[in-house]
Amino acid sequence: MSRIWRAAALAAAFVFMSAPASGEEGIWTFDNIPTARMQRDLGWAPDQAWLDRVMAGTARIPGCSATNVSGQGLVLTNHHCVMSCVTALASARANYVENGFMAARREDEQRCPGMYVQVLVSISDVTARIETATSGVAAEGFARARDNEMVRIQRECESGLHCEVVTLYQGGRYAVYRYKRYDDVRLAFAPEHIVAAFGGDPDNFTFPRYCLDFALLRVYENNAPAATPAHLSMRFTPLADGEITLVAGNPGSTSRLRTSAQLAFERDVMLPWQIASLAEARGRIVAYAQQGPDQARISAEMLQTVDNGFKVFSGRRLALVDGFSTITAAEADLRARVSRNAAAQRAVGDAWGEVEAAQNAYRAMFYAYQYFEARAGERSQLFTYARDIVRAAAEREKADAERLPRYANARLPALGRAIAIARPIDSTFEQVHLELWLSQMRELLTVDHPLVLRVLGQRSPEALAAELAQSRLTDPAFRLALWEGGAPAIAASTDPLIVFVRAWDEDARSLRAQYQTQVEAPVARAQERIARARFQAFGTSLYPDATFSPRLSYGRVRGWSEGEREIPSFTYTRGLFERATGQAPFALPQNWREAQARLDGGVIFNVSTAHDVTGGSSGSPLLDRDGRVVGAVFDGNIHSLGGDYFYDGARNRTVTVAATAIRQALADVYRMDALLAELEGR
Amino acid sequence: MSRIWRAAALAAAFVFMSAPASGEEGIWTFDNIPTARMQRDLGWAPDQAWLDRVMAGTARIPGCSATNVSGQGLVLTNHHCVMSCVTALASARANYVENGFMAARREDEQRCPGMYVQVLVSISDVTARIETATSGVAAEGFARARDNEMVRIQRECESGLHCEVVTLYQGGRYAVYRYKRYDDVRLAFAPEHIVAAFGGDPDNFTFPRYCLDFALLRVYENNAPAATPAHLSMRFTPLADGEITLVAGNPGSTSRLRTSAQLAFERDVMLPWQIASLAEARGRIVAYAQQGPDQARISAEMLQTVDNGFKVFSGRRLALVDGFSTITAAEADLRARVSRNAAAQRAVGDAWGEVEAAQNAYRAMFYAYQYFEARAGERSQLFTYARDIVRAAAEREKADAERLPRYANARLPALGRAIAIARPIDSTFEQVHLELWLSQMRELLTVDHPLVLRVLGQRSPEALAAELAQSRLTDPAFRLALWEGGAPAIAASTDPLIVFVRAWDEDARSLRAQYQTQVEAPVARAQERIARARFQAFGTSLYPDATFSPRLSYGRVRGWSEGEREIPSFTYTRGLFERATGQAPFALPQNWREAQARLDGGVIFNVSTAHDVTGGSSGSPLLDRDGRVVGAVFDGNIHSLGGDYFYDGARNRTVTVAATAIRQALADVYRMDALLAELEGR
Repeated sequence: MSRIWRAAALAAAFVFMSAPASGEEGIWTFDNIPTARMQRDLGWAPDQAWLDRVMAGTARIPGCSATNVSGQGLVLTNHHCVMSCVTALASARANYVENGFMAARREDEQRCPGMYVQVLVSISDVTARIETATSGVAAEGFARARDNEMVRIQRECESGLHCEVVTLYQGGRYAVYRYKRYDDVRLAFAPEHIVAAFGGDPDNFTFPRYCLDFALLRVYENNAPAATPAHLSMRFTPLADGEITLVAGNPGSTSRLRTSAQLAFERDVMLPWQIASLAEARGRIVAYAQQGPDQARISAEMLQTVDNGFKVFSGRRLALVDGFSTITAAEADLRARVSRNAAAQRAVGDAWGEVEAAQNAYRAMFYAYQYFEARAGERSQLFTYARDIVRAAAEREKADAERLPRYANARLPALGRAIAIARPIDSTFEQVHLELWLSQMRELLTVDHPLVLRVLGQRSPEALAAELAQSRLTDPAFRLALWEGGAPAIAASTDPLIVFVRAWDEDARSLRAQYQTQVEAPVARAQERIARARFQAFGTSLYPDATFSPRLSYGRVRGWSEGEREIPSFTYTRGLFERATGQAPFALPQNWREAQARLDGGVIFNVSTAHDVTGGSSGSPLLDRDGRVVGAVFDGNIHSLGGDYFYDGARNRTVTVAATAIRQALADVYRMDALLAELEGR
Repeated sequence: MSRIWRAAALAAAFVFMSAPASGEEGIWTFDNIPTARMQRDLGWAPDQAWLDRVMAGTARIPGCSATNVSGQGLVLTNHHCVMSCVTALASARANYVENGFMAARREDEQRCPGMYVQVLVSISDVTARIETATSGVAAEGFARARDNEMVRIQRECESGLHCEVVTLYQGGRYAVYRYKRYDDVRLAFAPEHIVAAFGGDPDNFTFPRYCLDFALLRVYENNAPAATPAHLSMRFTPLADGEITLVAGNPGSTSRLRTSAQLAFERDVMLPWQIASLAEARGRIVAYAQQGPDQARISAEMLQTVDNGFKVFSGRRLALVDGFSTITAAEADLRARVSRNAAAQRAVGDAWGEVEAAQNAYRAMFYAYQYFEARAGERSQLFTYARDIVRAAAEREKADAERLPRYANARLPALGRAIAIARPIDSTFEQVHLELWLSQMRELLTVDHPLVLRVLGQRSPEALAAELAQSRLTDPAFRLALWEGGAPAIAASTDPLIVFVRAWDEDARSLRAQYQTQVEAPVARAQERIARARFQAFGTSLYPDATFSPRLSYGRVRGWSEGEREIPSFTYTRGLFERATGQAPFALPQNWREAQARLDGGVIFNVSTAHDVTGGSSGSPLLDRDGRVVGAVFDGNIHSLGGDYFYDGARNRTVTVAATAIRQALADVYRMDALLAELEGR
């Protein structure tokens, strides 16, 4: 589940905690593991051989993490990380989503379109090179000089490897990460979706949990299974409560250096608005889905996205409400440290005040910026097409460097291809999104807002949405003709959505410019100074914010207290059957219903552990201290959602499908004996 | 509009501001007008004759306020305050909602069922009597002794009058209010609903505004128009910006003595939950309404309630976010004053800490208490019937004093009558509410909550809601039979909703008891001590919280600043036509479309004024310093919604339909010459 967990978020990232991390907090780079702290916290720490072995045995896949678990290229990850592959391979005849995908022989393994697997080979510090390239460069040229040097470093990458320069500590450190990349990746095994995502949205971000959220891929080279001697072994004996565990994966993004002014804005303005907006969208979409099987099918994926977003934002808001005094205390501590150092104080200046002023500026334009620009036409595919077509035509007339980044020469061809791809678009569902967007816009900005007046004219949101949903942009040939026709085609178009977007696009662009000038840029400048002060104070004794590159987190098997309720660390197979009501999303597939009698109910199914992980960590191996794979991380609890802002060691928990459950499924439910033998190293 | 504005809320009320009120703040009783402060703030204050005249000329009607505006019993109030009368009098043949109600002659005026008008005759302090009756009574007997004395005082009321003992300053003062009551109240004039509520939900709680939200009633005695020499005169000349104005009406309820812990709970837990819950309900209901004209009709009133609630709670949350530092500063000030007085400090003890502890206890039980008890089955009429029928049967077996107050002997007959009244209930709409309630319950409490398990059993929210909506409680005869059958009938019933409610009603009752013990009672005890300390410090130099009894507020005609936008004080008739798109809720009735050419566009239509008013003030006269009626208050702006907690003089504004617009409508649109002559005193 948990879409956000597989989002490879690439946003600029900031570390919040201003005092050195304590307890199990931290997502550590493989070249900076806090072994002394681990000794202190766990009474154990890995040696270099352990770290090398784990780094070589783990992998990154699109949006997720994974583990190489056999010498013949077998890769363990989550079912939800390969869902798009399962869907792509499925047909009416072979419904792999519903029935699972179970390759009886290697020849039956099928290639996943667009899937790749990257294994980190080495990390080298390149901070000095970046500093040399940027020294003496004026502020306005800094970013360009830095980026150019990054590109040069990446181009020097040795053949056969994929290199990325990673910005750590907001620019306190730069490192080049070199990956071996496999592009022929085939699906070997995926269980039925309904048992992989058992509990659906009601159980999303909760524990106790019963998801068989794993799948097996295999990497191929030269059309044969790749030899992968550096794989990790699986351990199928049960975990113990309190046992030391580690997670090696690719957390996507955290932003723990936001100031209290930013987080107050997030808590009081951004998140409440997002939550209410998603709640209303859910109400509409559920009602749409109930109109019939077609509508249910058309809206299923969107509903899942909205459900997930609602929980994510609710969890984040809760974390901010509960953790705000921690946040302000940490900020006060950092500011006190800075104020004791005259040079640091001069360098930082009034960075916190500048961020706060930018938040106030943001507040004044917030709804206008969201409804006309950032989230204009939210969830409407047709609106996205229309805006891209209108904007690309206008941007192509400009020099490359002056365009909006989305329409730079380097990106235009891919955007054009995406626009021309045929995909089913239902006008009635589009109308729902457009109407909701327009009616919320009118409500929150009021009828008297000048842009609301321009956008709506004499039309009600309902009438306008009905009109716009008649757009011919549902037709890929029509879209392509407009795309290729450029500015003259746009100017001549009478398509209602093109006419509509064209009419106020300049206003929307000004809002974007205003946002960038008044909010984004001042915040970035101020935060950079805060980050620098912090890195000067603590250096690498802290971990850098998540960057969707390999990290290690340490912790233990552990439940938590939810008010007066004690949440245990484990669930067991028997609980899966107790929870199964037969009604979605608590229904079991036939394979499991038939197997029930022969299954050991006492097998550990899912596990709660205390680890600092976040979106992108999905599919990461949960490891024991011997480096053996004891499960595949697939989610966090509701309190993990605050991990974007800070780590709450008391309640933030990681959720894993246990190796014991994987073994039971393969052995006793699916009878995948060959695959199991391979996993057992037999 | 603005349902909350006509709610005659009777909740226990608390005053927040701990320092003496400043500026235009305050809802003052007629026997305690702050003339010195008014002189200071306005350079003018009313004399006793002015106060007597205004008190005698204004009135209270169910949930609203009103003014007597002619010597023949004519009463001015809001259209939305007589909407239930208009609806009750309407028929398919005479659609008064759509076409308005315009009695050409007095004989055509029609009696409003259940409507009454109460005019305050006198106020007498009875604090000493209550104190005598309660002195020496132990704490647990205090409330009963006080209530008994109140009943005695009310019974002594002279014949022909209606008396109420009002608790002011949380018991710092008690006063008996004597009213003359008219029970024969007839509708004389109501405009078309679409122009009275022009702008509908999008314009609700906003300004600029264009609502012709007025109506005229007439009080009758002995089947003839009552002679009402003490009426107030209307003034039809335009108001000036900045002019001194007063509002005389019946603000329903405020609670300005809540502690910062309570308001943080409100801001962070209660309101965000309510807002998201209403947003989702709105999504469902809008989609339901779009299924067809029947569904639109069935859901119209509920949609309006939900829309209004969404805005009310959003406005309140906004006020708390923006005003929280004011709140904490005021609390700190009061606590500092208390701490300087050893006796006061002893009496208050740790009242603030006790309230905070109660909030924490509330938080732990919050969703369970809401979903299983306080808002169980929210919006489902069938669920309400079922619970009342099941509970009344159980409660009747107990002694009167031990019952839940709702089922006391004094209330049972009315409840029984209400249950037996035939009203259309649509099972498909009921199913929407039940499903939403059950699915939100499961989401927020999780599948593992013991009561969720008990309530849902093996059923999904969707399946269970479908089953419950089959209940025969749609049939009044069926309801009555169960009501009269009592406990044996309940025990024997197989109706799905009765079976359902019966199964977990004891659990819901325990949650109620737990809430009362752990939250309600400790908060009440602590707040009583805070209120007492505050009354000792300030006495009647402050105003008491609103109690839906006559009050006077003073202020001026004034707009406000919304960010960089200046909101003016007036709107004009021409703006109504500019705003009319022809699409609901911005469509004009035929009368207005036809009259447009002959209307003066420069007539003041609606007015923004700075006054401290709140729900219950709807229909209040806006008065000039000569005591002439210059309009009828019908709403507040979005910032007025924070008035429940504190008064924000910079942005809280009252919205009034101007006498000039009323005159224009009667003279130039509706040609109600006789009525206008009466209003003009001709």
